[in-house]
Amino acid sequence: MKRFTILSALMLTAVLAMAQQALWGGAQLVSPEIHPDNTVTFRLHAPKAVKVQVTGDFLPTQKMKTPYGEFDAPGTADLTEGKEGVWEYTTPSPLAPELYSYTFLVDGLKINDPANVYMIRDVASVTNVFIIGGGRADLYKVNAVPHGTLSKQWYHSPSLGIERRLTVYTPAGYETSGKRYPVFYLLHGMGGDENAWSELGRAAQIMDNLIAQGKAEPMILVMTNGNAAQEAAPGESSLGYVPPTMQLPKTMEGSFETHFPEVVKFIDKNYRTKANKKSRAIAGLSMGGFHSLHISKQYPDLFNYVGLFSAAIMPGKETKSPVYEEMEGKLKVQFAKKPALYWIAIGKTDFLYKANEEYRRLLDAKGYPYEYYESDEGHIWKNWRIYLTEFAPKLFRQ
Amino acid sequence: MKRFTILSALMLTAVLAMAQQALWGGAQLVSPEIHPDNTVTFRLHAPKAVKVQVTGDFLPTQKMKTPYGEFDAPGTADLTEGKEGVWEYTTPSPLAPELYSYTFLVDGLKINDPANVYMIRDVASVTNVFIIGGGRADLYKVNAVPHGTLSKQWYHSPSLGIERRLTVYTPAGYETSGKRYPVFYLLHGMGGDENAWSELGRAAQIMDNLIAQGKAEPMILVMTNGNAAQEAAPGESSLGYVPPTMQLPKTMEGSFETHFPEVVKFIDKNYRTKANKKSRAIAGLSMGGFHSLHISKQYPDLFNYVGLFSAAIMPGKETKSPVYEEMEGKLKVQFAKKPALYWIAIGKTDFLYKANEEYRRLLDAKGYPYEYYESDEGHIWKNWRIYLTEFAPKLFRQ
Repeated sequence: MKRFTILSALMLTAVLAMAQQALWGGAQLVSPEIHPDNTVTFRLHAPKAVKVQVTGDFLPTQKMKTPYGEFDAPGTADLTEGKEGVWEYTTPSPLAPELYSYTFLVDGLKINDPANVYMIRDVASVTNVFIIGGGRADLYKVNAVPHGTLSKQWYHSPSLGIERRLTVYTPAGYETSGKRYPVFYLLHGMGGDENAWSELGRAAQIMDNLIAQGKAEPMILVMTNGNAAQEAAPGESSLGYVPPTMQLPKTMEGSFETHFPEVVKFIDKNYRTKANKKSRAIAGLSMGGFHSLHISKQYPDLFNYVGLFSAAIMPGKETKSPVYEEMEGKLKVQFAKKPALYWIAIGKTDFLYKANEEYRRLLDAKGYPYEYYESDEGHIWKNWRIYLTEFAPKLFRQ
Repeated sequence: MKRFTILSALMLTAVLAMAQQALWGGAQLVSPEIHPDNTVTFRLHAPKAVKVQVTGDFLPTQKMKTPYGEFDAPGTADLTEGKEGVWEYTTPSPLAPELYSYTFLVDGLKINDPANVYMIRDVASVTNVFIIGGGRADLYKVNAVPHGTLSKQWYHSPSLGIERRLTVYTPAGYETSGKRYPVFYLLHGMGGDENAWSELGRAAQIMDNLIAQGKAEPMILVMTNGNAAQEAAPGESSLGYVPPTMQLPKTMEGSFETHFPEVVKFIDKNYRTKANKKSRAIAGLSMGGFHSLHISKQYPDLFNYVGLFSAAIMPGKETKSPVYEEMEGKLKVQFAKKPALYWIAIGKTDFLYKANEEYRRLLDAKGYPYEYYESDEGHIWKNWRIYLTEFAPKLFRQ
């Protein structure tokens, strides 16, 4: 067989690596480099650039004024040009444990870090990410614990008339345990889709870790697509490669909420669920909090646990769906049935803080019990990951 | 409830869109724009750039000389600066149906297209992608057909001593049919991982479409990670955010091959499979073809169908594993058991063409039957997608 030994393994590796390199250019620099003390260095090879900056949520925020109020925007920091066109920036102090997002600005042009292939899409933007471990952020990491299965599955919605995709997390051991599990429906915000919670939200990692530590019950997570006109995330549907910002109709006009029992029915048919109210939870962030509020009161016999994460408390005058009518009467019915948990969380600087405060005042006036969790900062993924780590351990303990 | 109507739906949309915009900058330009005649326009806003180019596999290749021979590298085309710093390039003629990858070069700096969030990672590089429909390329699209489920699942490998991730495609209807299905194990190439076939390979879309058209049997696809030292794709393992190029040991030294029966056992335990040789296929591209060759002859009672896609015909002198010893004797045993199909495919300009030619000569000399498929071009994903669409319809028809 010697004559078939055409290429040695080492040589093949070299050739393939070179071909690869030739095709798309390689990642030679290390960026970001996380130092042992948790300071971080960012590097970019850009010999012709005049100005290189990094922008991301690891930098102090800067205030940005808009007609709608003041927002916290991520800060920027300048990189310094060193040898051979390599620009560099090191954080002046260690970063706190967290999952961070960033991009570079090269002469004002936003680009991703070519040395870091770890990117996550959020609505119409793709950013690089990295994790500083420690504390709660260790829940966001893939650790050496039993891992659940993450599936992308399609269901038919008779009321919407289309096939739709959802993401399902089943806990480690689901396939062979023969057991039935409770189900937690977890909804995304405006501009998100069925990928949001498992990507930026680190939902699978958080559940793996909480379950492995005995801090949460083994449960099924169902992450739907809350844009009723969409089949699936942009690029994953038969709509093809339409820009995501053009794929957002039918988000807060009632049709997602009224179709939701179809999702529950599908999950109960396709998974070994505990198919009863006692074993179902629903929560969502921003628009998903709005959806959770309305779905849980519209169908008061479906969910025993409700979580509103930075919820968009609505509706406005434009929305005519019957879902949003008779809100007080429906809340009365919902709370008369004594849900096991009604949980409201928001950040101190969230632009929806006041709307949530007023909503809590209504619940207080009616004597409807709820738990309240207030965090720092505003309408950001950092908070939604925190809320998930706080909310999931409270579920299905009865 | 009027007092809780804090924000109208329209206003909230505007605020969220603005916050989003402020956070990461929006995608205002349309790029790529696919015109009705299948010419394509690329656009980039880069007012300070001196030179902007696009590079990708839709352009004529250019020859690149290396110590190992001549390779085809993607060509480049210059964009022209128009009004307000928007650069533009339109292909001079319509593009043929295909899934294409591209990036921009701004003053030599490789960047992704900020207007196109559809990106796929290949080894250590991330490129933007788009599909020109028609012909075979329609198999790569998400069409309005029943969709299978794509799952990321973890298994324990006793021989490798780690938890490892794999991707499983189950055909539409699997969850509720109660039926058993044949299994096709599909392996990636060097630098790839368990995500490669479902992303660049469009395996789920190809199988959905072939099955819907009645051109392939409903089957389970299992896409493993062929780097025996890896738990999972870079960023998805407890190794954390190590650059992918540093995560490639133990790829062609026998341990992946010898652990493979553990994968088959796991799949047969966790899925409703037809757990017999008649109902199993294995194929792979490049290094995965090498793995398929050696696994199928090492375990001649496991697989009835074998596919070598641009296979790396090996081994070299450095590899000492018993897996690679007594190759002729093992092939004799394998072919004496009359596999239903032994399928070899390669591109005319592939740098592994000669190695495959010599291997076919060996099979010819021994009188071992195989089918051969020769395509244009070389060692590229375009060919591997083609081979999958050719190979899958031949499986499990007996």
